[in-house]
Amino acid sequence: MENKDDILVNYLRVTSALEISRAKSGHTGICLGSAPMAYSVFKNALLDRSNPDFISRDRVVFSAGHASALCYALLHLFGFDVSVDDLKSFRKLGSKTPGHPELVTPGVDAMTGPLGQGVGMAVGMAIAEEYLRNKLRRENFSPVDHYTYCLVGDGCLMEGVAQEAISLAGRLRLDRLIVLYDRNRITIEGNSNLSNNEDVIAKFRACGFSVLHVRDGRSVKAIDHAIRKAKHSSRPTLIVVDTTIGYGSALKGTAEIHGKALDDENVRILRDNLGYHYDDYVLPQDCDEYIKKLLRSKDKRLEKYRKQLSMYKAKYKEEYDLFESFMTEKAVDFSKIMKKVITKEEILDFRKKGHEIFNCISTLYPNMLGGCADLAPSTRCFFDDEGYFNNDKSSRNIAFGIREHAMGSVSCGIALHGGLRAFCSTFLTFAGYMTPAIRMASMMNLPVLYYFTHDSLAVGEDGPTHQPVEQLATLRSMPSLYTFRPCGEREMFGTLQFYFSHSSPVALCLPRQKIDRVEDDFEESMKGGYVISQCWGHDITIVACGSEVPLALSTAKLLLRDGIKARVVSMPCTSLFDEQSREYKDNVLHRDRPIFCIECSGDNVWYKYATNPNYVFHLTSFGRSGEYHAVLEDFGFTEEKFASFIRRNLRYARREGTSDNEQKR
Amino acid sequence: MENKDDILVNYLRVTSALEISRAKSGHTGICLGSAPMAYSVFKNALLDRSNPDFISRDRVVFSAGHASALCYALLHLFGFDVSVDDLKSFRKLGSKTPGHPELVTPGVDAMTGPLGQGVGMAVGMAIAEEYLRNKLRRENFSPVDHYTYCLVGDGCLMEGVAQEAISLAGRLRLDRLIVLYDRNRITIEGNSNLSNNEDVIAKFRACGFSVLHVRDGRSVKAIDHAIRKAKHSSRPTLIVVDTTIGYGSALKGTAEIHGKALDDENVRILRDNLGYHYDDYVLPQDCDEYIKKLLRSKDKRLEKYRKQLSMYKAKYKEEYDLFESFMTEKAVDFSKIMKKVITKEEILDFRKKGHEIFNCISTLYPNMLGGCADLAPSTRCFFDDEGYFNNDKSSRNIAFGIREHAMGSVSCGIALHGGLRAFCSTFLTFAGYMTPAIRMASMMNLPVLYYFTHDSLAVGEDGPTHQPVEQLATLRSMPSLYTFRPCGEREMFGTLQFYFSHSSPVALCLPRQKIDRVEDDFEESMKGGYVISQCWGHDITIVACGSEVPLALSTAKLLLRDGIKARVVSMPCTSLFDEQSREYKDNVLHRDRPIFCIECSGDNVWYKYATNPNYVFHLTSFGRSGEYHAVLEDFGFTEEKFASFIRRNLRYARREGTSDNEQKR
Repeated sequence: MENKDDILVNYLRVTSALEISRAKSGHTGICLGSAPMAYSVFKNALLDRSNPDFISRDRVVFSAGHASALCYALLHLFGFDVSVDDLKSFRKLGSKTPGHPELVTPGVDAMTGPLGQGVGMAVGMAIAEEYLRNKLRRENFSPVDHYTYCLVGDGCLMEGVAQEAISLAGRLRLDRLIVLYDRNRITIEGNSNLSNNEDVIAKFRACGFSVLHVRDGRSVKAIDHAIRKAKHSSRPTLIVVDTTIGYGSALKGTAEIHGKALDDENVRILRDNLGYHYDDYVLPQDCDEYIKKLLRSKDKRLEKYRKQLSMYKAKYKEEYDLFESFMTEKAVDFSKIMKKVITKEEILDFRKKGHEIFNCISTLYPNMLGGCADLAPSTRCFFDDEGYFNNDKSSRNIAFGIREHAMGSVSCGIALHGGLRAFCSTFLTFAGYMTPAIRMASMMNLPVLYYFTHDSLAVGEDGPTHQPVEQLATLRSMPSLYTFRPCGEREMFGTLQFYFSHSSPVALCLPRQKIDRVEDDFEESMKGGYVISQCWGHDITIVACGSEVPLALSTAKLLLRDGIKARVVSMPCTSLFDEQSREYKDNVLHRDRPIFCIECSGDNVWYKYATNPNYVFHLTSFGRSGEYHAVLEDFGFTEEKFASFIRRNLRYARREGTSDNEQKR
Repeated sequence: MENKDDILVNYLRVTSALEISRAKSGHTGICLGSAPMAYSVFKNALLDRSNPDFISRDRVVFSAGHASALCYALLHLFGFDVSVDDLKSFRKLGSKTPGHPELVTPGVDAMTGPLGQGVGMAVGMAIAEEYLRNKLRRENFSPVDHYTYCLVGDGCLMEGVAQEAISLAGRLRLDRLIVLYDRNRITIEGNSNLSNNEDVIAKFRACGFSVLHVRDGRSVKAIDHAIRKAKHSSRPTLIVVDTTIGYGSALKGTAEIHGKALDDENVRILRDNLGYHYDDYVLPQDCDEYIKKLLRSKDKRLEKYRKQLSMYKAKYKEEYDLFESFMTEKAVDFSKIMKKVITKEEILDFRKKGHEIFNCISTLYPNMLGGCADLAPSTRCFFDDEGYFNNDKSSRNIAFGIREHAMGSVSCGIALHGGLRAFCSTFLTFAGYMTPAIRMASMMNLPVLYYFTHDSLAVGEDGPTHQPVEQLATLRSMPSLYTFRPCGEREMFGTLQFYFSHSSPVALCLPRQKIDRVEDDFEESMKGGYVISQCWGHDITIVACGSEVPLALSTAKLLLRDGIKARVVSMPCTSLFDEQSREYKDNVLHRDRPIFCIECSGDNVWYKYATNPNYVFHLTSFGRSGEYHAVLEDFGFTEEKFASFIRRNLRYARREGTSDNEQKR
């Protein structure tokens, strides 16, 4: 064990174990077992410790996010802004070293933890790189040109989201993607063979990957060699690395070490077994020099890049400007563009209009990249003047295949990469397939546009499986995600204006059916909610969104015949409305008079605005198959039925007070 | 084309096309292309048209649920209670022939539509069969002994849930599972090669499947042959059937035919191309006789089964009684059993207690089968006295592997099979991975127990990725699903008593952390909500559930020092509470006085019960990594902070009235 790489690997093992031991919480097993492969990645990767966001750096995704202690030890070792004190604060509230990797730590490329998500994100980063490299390359240089490394465990690869992403990566021939598989054959319930006996190598080959196999996962040399080989593959590569979980500890090779923190005695045993006896967190002198030398060689590569970039800038002005436009997005005011698209048709074919609007802004934002999960002809979310990325790597439409979950996760990766915004599209009912990915986008506050259509019962014939009910509740309860259901073209523009002015994820939900045109408002929609139909001396307010706004307006007209004066609030985005000033909200809602809410969905958010729990008109059961007008009628979503619901409740409230909590329909 | 099988296949093609044409909605492409394989399955399968629920019938799952028109045509052809009038009502509201298969139709074994779910359900049925067959078999007979057929398309196989299920089926060597893959190489966006170029045959072999290949998907004979061969395989089998989407139509082989209804002219062209000119819906005379003969041979097999079963009954009384107990579940009153388990410990280790309670009832319900997604040591949801089904096919613990989505879907399949209830378990944060499967259980009203732990921020160190926020909103917005967060052992018993007295899915959510014991109530918990701490002449009511109940109780004590009299309502299950009589609910809530709600989650359901939108204390952001007490403190989940929230709001309401809508924290 004279080799400096090996000493450094042991440094990482002991440091990880110390972090976890001190926190009395964490995952020692993977840190000890996969230290050599993770070290080899950091050794080989081009990273910039003084500018961790350097756009052409190699990306490193710890998909097995429970290896966080190892990740932090590596960042510390490789000169990132992660101090010994940070390592000692592992898993403490407010520290730079949280339980699973988060973007708060300099050098962390992706938030991970829920297994499999990192694989999708790595595939997304590789797609982003491939697109930018191809788009910008002149001669032999491109401002964006790097590898994406992804460290995975047995758990990651069992997850469906990873399987989908792997299959997509194989189809797209993402040859800059290198997945390192820490095969320790142990999961929490025991030997992985208990639940899985796939021939992983054959499976990845069947998916279009090159596969390399490192039989001795302790050998940095062997892993280095495999990584060099992987870099030259014309396909994405899986490097299977056979390792021992908890290597060096008394519990090595067992499920017990997976989530165990070692006590002092066991750290001592670890040190003995590894033959590593240097002080805590301190690098041996010669290793320190070795690392410095490694870092200098990376600095030289960075210096070379900068020189090439300035030559590129001098020679290819137009391309450099394009590069710059990717890096620094310009704000565009949509209010002017809007006029070109908005017509005066009485009936709005929203999916068609959505398509027009989406294309209208696409020329302004060359940094949008994304696609559909095999529903492009139906959601119509695609660029007319672009081909498929699948066939031409500088095109902007991605055919994700029938892989919603990977689509969501890949979109996170594209947005994480930098230089790009991501969009993806399917029916709202299938949002459930990608919830964990939307959650990651929300936690990381990534500018991903989730573009859903078929957003209510009005899906009709396809029936309950295709009619969303609980999906909006999920989306609206997701912190940091802005969920919009616009009721017209202006609100659709408002949604996109909001999206392009922020770096937050947005879920845009459009109806399948055609709806009546309403007098919606661009500016006001960006406040989340506003009075779309005023009524002086009003008796009640009706709050609605999306396809229910025209219904609310016609209901208000009907009620007027009975002398009930109703004003209507369009509330395309509840969370954005909640952020407005108290004064604004009071003016919009007028809580001193009854507020009724209607939505063709099962979200309980409306109880927040209704002045009585009986005043919410929404879904409490799944839908039904049938012609969509018949279905809407059946569930009471007609102006007559909604008006009589309001009348009945007002009568009841007058008679009984507002003390009851029962739904009457 | 003199062969009767071929004529019948054309009958099915034309009939499907007619159904869709009449409805002007549906999926003609798959019906025309996969008619021969679906016909071959119905021909070979042992089905009982007069008793469609016959427990030992072969199961047929149309995972590609958009082939519903074909499914109904087959059911009609094979004598099930699906009439020509039913076929003519295809996709009409209230018909027996909805847009995608639903359990309302006699002979439909699974509700399908969202791609991939049917694969998981078929795997679940095969698991159920395997378990029951092994458990009950004596000599060469078992009362449950059949095959499970699953018809899938390109879309199904791209979905992660299917990939997970396939991998699990391979590991479990479910040799009675036969998956028929309609490989037409067309998806909605065009050639499937656009997004997928897997070597499917190699991939399935890598997952432990036998693979057969039928190159001419029009040949019933070739498919019959493959099915016969598959029945003798010692592994699950994939039969790849190369087909042409929309076969016989003018648009065959194109994406356009996928979701297209043919008009009269195109039905005529179809008939011409197929050379099929019999009247609409009418069987040619000789084919009618052929089908009757087929049905008679099935009747003979059914007769043989009945004879064998009565011999089995005579000879193996104990085993027959066990079989009976699977078929007809006995109600058990848990109130007596409860006393054995409940102790007087001041601090409740809920996961440990949950484990004890789960095991305590397991002996009473031999029809419970399920397991965890590799978190058994942590959720502790497993049977102590049983081994792993993975190793011994008559054991009741299934190691699902790190495959939450398939776990959810497989559980649906187990419950659908009949004779069994299913349970499955993971952390609540990962409920998102299985939402579409829970949705299927809810739509079908299947008795699946979703057993979640780690149900709040108190997960602590593992951080925001592992701390659920929006999950309860999803679950509680899911119609037909009962979501429980019990606050003590009695409520946990109440949850299980409810579950075992109904055939609805239940989501049970338990905390990770230990919590203070409270005086919870078994009977009352089955009303969904009840007054757990009364306070005469109360000023306010606090509504809470799960781990927030002890917090609410201690907050009430604290408030009393300021002279604020608070009563506390424990509401383990909101949807069950909503079902109670108005009188009961009024008595519990007392809406004439302020109601505050608290939950360490982001669900908006509490706005339904709070008397003012400011009175809801819950999460509007993601969690943080840290020691769990520190995290709870940070988010205000301590009695001091909650009490001061209440005081502040009461003061504010006194001063300003209750007209504002802003969250103050």
